[in-house]
Amino acid sequence: MTNIFEANLNKNPANHTPMTPLSFIERAAQVYPHQLAIIHGNLRQDWATTYSRCKKLASALQKIGIGIGDTVAVMLPNTPPMVEAHFGVPMSGAVLNCLNTRLDPEAIAFMLNHGESRVVLIDPEFSLTMKKALAIAKQQPDSRAEQIIVIDIEDDLYDGYSETLGKINYEEFLASADPSFDWLMPNDEWQAICLNYTSGTTGNPKGVVYHHRGAATNAISNILEWDMPRHPVYLWTLPMFHCNGWCFAWTVAARAGVNVCLRRVDAKNIFAAMKEHQVTHYCAAPIVHGLLVNADDSLKEGVPQGVKAMVAGAAPPASMIEGMEKLGFDLTHVYGLTETYGPAAVC
Amino acid sequence: MTNIFEANLNKNPANHTPMTPLSFIERAAQVYPHQLAIIHGNLRQDWATTYSRCKKLASALQKIGIGIGDTVAVMLPNTPPMVEAHFGVPMSGAVLNCLNTRLDPEAIAFMLNHGESRVVLIDPEFSLTMKKALAIAKQQPDSRAEQIIVIDIEDDLYDGYSETLGKINYEEFLASADPSFDWLMPNDEWQAICLNYTSGTTGNPKGVVYHHRGAATNAISNILEWDMPRHPVYLWTLPMFHCNGWCFAWTVAARAGVNVCLRRVDAKNIFAAMKEHQVTHYCAAPIVHGLLVNADDSLKEGVPQGVKAMVAGAAPPASMIEGMEKLGFDLTHVYGLTETYGPAAVC
Repeated sequence: MTNIFEANLNKNPANHTPMTPLSFIERAAQVYPHQLAIIHGNLRQDWATTYSRCKKLASALQKIGIGIGDTVAVMLPNTPPMVEAHFGVPMSGAVLNCLNTRLDPEAIAFMLNHGESRVVLIDPEFSLTMKKALAIAKQQPDSRAEQIIVIDIEDDLYDGYSETLGKINYEEFLASADPSFDWLMPNDEWQAICLNYTSGTTGNPKGVVYHHRGAATNAISNILEWDMPRHPVYLWTLPMFHCNGWCFAWTVAARAGVNVCLRRVDAKNIFAAMKEHQVTHYCAAPIVHGLLVNADDSLKEGVPQGVKAMVAGAAPPASMIEGMEKLGFDLTHVYGLTETYGPAAVC
Repeated sequence: MTNIFEANLNKNPANHTPMTPLSFIERAAQVYPHQLAIIHGNLRQDWATTYSRCKKLASALQKIGIGIGDTVAVMLPNTPPMVEAHFGVPMSGAVLNCLNTRLDPEAIAFMLNHGESRVVLIDPEFSLTMKKALAIAKQQPDSRAEQIIVIDIEDDLYDGYSETLGKINYEEFLASADPSFDWLMPNDEWQAICLNYTSGTTGNPKGVVYHHRGAATNAISNILEWDMPRHPVYLWTLPMFHCNGWCFAWTVAARAGVNVCLRRVDAKNIFAAMKEHQVTHYCAAPIVHGLLVNADDSLKEGVPQGVKAMVAGAAPPASMIEGMEKLGFDLTHVYGLTETYGPAAVC
């Protein structure tokens, strides 16, 4: 019998379905095509459309020669293209590098070169930082930054100053996709899905590479730890550039939930979004929770009860926990590292 | 950069934590040691104790020479040893073969020989069937059934006739364990965890082998499909010998829930258990749900509301769905096969 059981050992990874968060969006689009996937300003985008746009992004990337092992960087706030990049980039085989929008041009330039980015998607709010970062990157020795293809995002919700840096914008780029394109699952679940730089407290930023299997596992673990039911309404207070929003960028698709986008994290915007969209879940650093607890009472009026809040980092002070409870929020405390795909310990 | 990402490919399975349901019980025992794991008659057993007993079972099996690739058969109703066998047997490296307690001695004899069982755990209720099955098995050509080690279970809740078939009972066997034993995770997640025979409508029963990865994935999938929160109170109406209770034997550990055991599936026992233990979830074939719907009204009084019921097979008739709703139950319909680890499609 030993031989029979041994014959069952699946030794060739090509013979099995890989674990990847890409299967989450495929399933969300198949099973819940008309369920809301993204809210941003007046935009209401369902899972079928979101999946279709992600496939277009992957196709457009492949058409300009991007594939397995290439890096695609993004400098984006929590907007729809950021959600789409989490699926569209790895669907092309490439590795997603979400840049920290709070960093200065020097740090960004280091990452563009170190990560050998071949494409970068840029939100208008960060066009000036990126203009400088690209200029600095090009001057560094052995840089290939000269060849980086820049794709400009346009967003009606941003009304500040910006410059167009590339030759094509995001919607034009998606329109260049091959309509018959069919993306392929990674043929190895250990393949890289994204590259995240840590803050580099001890020198230059360090790159951390996540694989498809790890991203999928952690995204599911988020659901289990939070007892997260189907179709949550998830508010994007935590930046997606931070450990891919603790892998929640993929978790929301796994639950066919709603990504409520948020360009700017302040108490007024957060409470307004919570009330308007009946938010059920959000994650944030202690400072953001503090912002909410200490906000003007008029903002808090009518906020939905029982919102699940996840806080990371050091243990939150008792006053904050009390304040959150007074708001009617249900707090979960987690701790993690970029190297552990985000939250690893739960309290 | 391609090289850096390639270096990340984890090509050696020995380098990563395998996916296995065995990690579920380890975690339940570590994180929720005093949470109730098993209810059976007057028995109340927590996860720490259950984990410890599973390790003892594994150690005792190893001490009699059982290891990777060996088959351990069990002929058990939904009692505590059945829960424990789902972890203790694979912890020894062996493969669990749950025999269908409804089959006749001839069919069982075929399975004992075909599966090359080396050990069999026997509930007193099935001692006569097994006595005959072992006798038949021994007479078949090339049989090694003569060497099968029989372990008799004792259970106060069974008051019918039974015979002692082996030289050792279950509690004595556990007591023979090495106290310093430390079980090892499978070093390959594709390793076999159990062997299930299908009914064999087209001839002899067919053996289906599950691997650790598939068992773990399906157990988690049960949680996701059912939005099953932590610490469910799960009533064992569905036989664990049937696709390992659709993998729920492992799901309950993954949620650190309560296994409410049930020797005999009848409306009186089911409703009584639901009321006494405030059951939250159960699975069953349509016939069992029908039993409940058509039961005497006096039995239904005081049954907890909102119990989640999973039904498998053909679409349940409208009258049954209505009856279930009248009971206040929340019905989920699934379809699956032994070959797909149980439920695969959800309605």
